[in-house]
Amino acid sequence: MKTSLLAAALAVVVMSGEALAQAKPEQLVKQRQAVMTLQGKYFGPMAGMAQGRIPYDAKIVQRNAGFLDNLSRMPWDGFAESTKDVKSAALPAIWTDSAKWAEAADHLQTEASKLYAVSRSGDEAAVKAQIGAVGKACGGCHESFRQKQ
Amino acid sequence: MKTSLLAAALAVVVMSGEALAQAKPEQLVKQRQAVMTLQGKYFGPMAGMAQGRIPYDAKIVQRNAGFLDNLSRMPWDGFAESTKDVKSAALPAIWTDSAKWAEAADHLQTEASKLYAVSRSGDEAAVKAQIGAVGKACGGCHESFRQKQ
Repeated sequence: MKTSLLAAALAVVVMSGEALAQAKPEQLVKQRQAVMTLQGKYFGPMAGMAQGRIPYDAKIVQRNAGFLDNLSRMPWDGFAESTKDVKSAALPAIWTDSAKWAEAADHLQTEASKLYAVSRSGDEAAVKAQIGAVGKACGGCHESFRQKQ
Repeated sequence: MKTSLLAAALAVVVMSGEALAQAKPEQLVKQRQAVMTLQGKYFGPMAGMAQGRIPYDAKIVQRNAGFLDNLSRMPWDGFAESTKDVKSAALPAIWTDSAKWAEAADHLQTEASKLYAVSRSGDEAAVKAQIGAVGKACGGCHESFRQKQ
């Protein structure tokens, strides 16, 4: 468990003491799904560029990577245990295997943060490789913790 | 019309040339509504703190203001003219009075960016005043461009 994960866990505790105390489970699910929608919006074009389906544009990658870095830190408090019974694609393993889940969540944040850093370097090959690493981090979490779609 | 607005307009043009070309109107609406959901998630607690309903927490304000600064730049390309006929709370004035609309959109980005800057200063009174300014910018746009709810 890395420091950033611990920090994130503490942040959730801090938040849950106040602002989150009144958030309804349905609202939490709506919010975390909103994050997933936007992660898709900004990751999609980068994946297309890494795969050569879309012309590479360093400026768009930088912008999208900055947004994704932020977004990757947003969904986790939306997976509160109170949301277990709300209909969604989230699998029970999120709450039964919470250590592995937290590690997967932390992994995405780490890779997204690296992508933002490398997107500012101008090294296109490195950026494309890191886009791949982010994609793997998305997939790694979805594989174990999201219903097959 | 400020420079940042022009930059935003150019960014939309650049994006529309590639990544957005294939985005369906329904998807664009879903994405922009996702941004609004998350702006609410992160602005809500700050508004509560500014109004004294929630204990003031500078760390949470800093984090939320950083997220909001990013989020405030995300929704605009989702209001493409192709979405005019998709059911939503967006009013036609967005497309018939697009200069006023663009100014209102730019105003939110400016105020959110200021809030992020001031949230790092440690000046609680200034932060609370700026939270109020952001709230006004939200309301200013909703007043003219969103159906009454």
